[in-house]
Amino acid sequence: MVRAPIPDLASGERRLEGAVAHYLARVLRLGAGDAFVGFDPVRSLEASAVVVKTDPDGMTVRFEDAREAAARGPRAVTWIQGLAKGDKCDAVVRDATELGATRIVVAQTERSVVRLDAARASARQARWTRIAQEAARQCGRSDAPAVEPFCAWTEAIAGVEPAEGARFCLWERATEPVGPALFEAIARGGPLAFACGPEGGLETGEVERAAAAGWTIASLGGLTLRTETVAAAVLGAVLVMAGAIEP
Amino acid sequence: MVRAPIPDLASGERRLEGAVAHYLARVLRLGAGDAFVGFDPVRSLEASAVVVKTDPDGMTVRFEDAREAAARGPRAVTWIQGLAKGDKCDAVVRDATELGATRIVVAQTERSVVRLDAARASARQARWTRIAQEAARQCGRSDAPAVEPFCAWTEAIAGVEPAEGARFCLWERATEPVGPALFEAIARGGPLAFACGPEGGLETGEVERAAAAGWTIASLGGLTLRTETVAAAVLGAVLVMAGAIEP
Repeated sequence: MVRAPIPDLASGERRLEGAVAHYLARVLRLGAGDAFVGFDPVRSLEASAVVVKTDPDGMTVRFEDAREAAARGPRAVTWIQGLAKGDKCDAVVRDATELGATRIVVAQTERSVVRLDAARASARQARWTRIAQEAARQCGRSDAPAVEPFCAWTEAIAGVEPAEGARFCLWERATEPVGPALFEAIARGGPLAFACGPEGGLETGEVERAAAAGWTIASLGGLTLRTETVAAAVLGAVLVMAGAIEP
Repeated sequence: MVRAPIPDLASGERRLEGAVAHYLARVLRLGAGDAFVGFDPVRSLEASAVVVKTDPDGMTVRFEDAREAAARGPRAVTWIQGLAKGDKCDAVVRDATELGATRIVVAQTERSVVRLDAARASARQARWTRIAQEAARQCGRSDAPAVEPFCAWTEAIAGVEPAEGARFCLWERATEPVGPALFEAIARGGPLAFACGPEGGLETGEVERAAAAGWTIASLGGLTLRTETVAAAVLGAVLVMAGAIEP
């Protein structure tokens, strides 16, 4: 069944324009009488829908009563990503969404080549939110991860409370592999958080600040991963390990 | 230390031209007297090297005696990838190399949108080999994975013997999660093999042929991953799980 993200999903008739209408009417060629599922990525609701009519600028659809969404991320997982160049953060948001992240924070780090002023940071956050919602739709999730406002590394690290579960700062120079502690954390249950530097890695001071805040500093092994590979590798590991040790 | 892939690495003076010379001289601006490490991705050897002189078409370098390469993939891991559109297989080769694959096979499947004739298949194999060698260099591996000739799915599946260890065919409609059996296989040690369809997934008959050949048919959970995410997720899981359960 076709799925489309619908903010403020509610039962009744509604007019759709813009990207969603384009996707349904032009890309998927849905017309009057065709059914799809609308989902509200913020509130984890979904509702059966039918197209009433299409026109050149959009379409009118009718939603049935909204219900609790069926498929959702299995646990709270925060991904903090050091701001990287080009479209690398787009790829990280997409991968992290597919692999179950529930909250994504992109953070300014000392080695981030790009600097974002307030206006650009806000535009990027909107862009990453759209990417997360689209990726959630494509992979069958109903709850897109929350993309938090762009902020500084220290603020991002401080923004995940110890009570929010096990927290891992991934650093290629760490001596402890992430595996054992992550395995324990998954077996124990509860939320997870990960933080990862940009393509140039983290400064020692940034790692020390994470350690001081109680984060576990851990490595993915002897090879140097590109920053855009780390989220998929680590969140893939969480998915597979959770499938191995949870009933 | 800068690392560069050198086929047939041997001690003594040697002239380098083409991509490697361009990378060393133009991108990294190495000149006479500068040191680097050459590695032979096929034989897992490496050797200290120094630039003797550069010229407009290339450079002369001198290698010391070759030694067993220091960093290499920790175990034999085969990745069979259903041929996907665009540059998706390039991304899979890059990710799989970073995450420790030792052999990569791209296979024609029923839902592969692209068809490759012999000439294009050979050109693609050469391209994927270059990408694997470059990715190996960037992540600090000395043994680039072997990129096997492009072949049909059935042939690729038959090409991994049961004696080569645990074999997993990843299928979104499988009912068993990959975690438990993969966990056991990693704990037991020995080689691993994985097979994954293209963006449209595998046909039931293709999955049945893998099952008949003794492959374990397993799922990554309820969400539908893009084919280009699967290798990073699964091989990341192998890396993390191996770090958790191997001494």
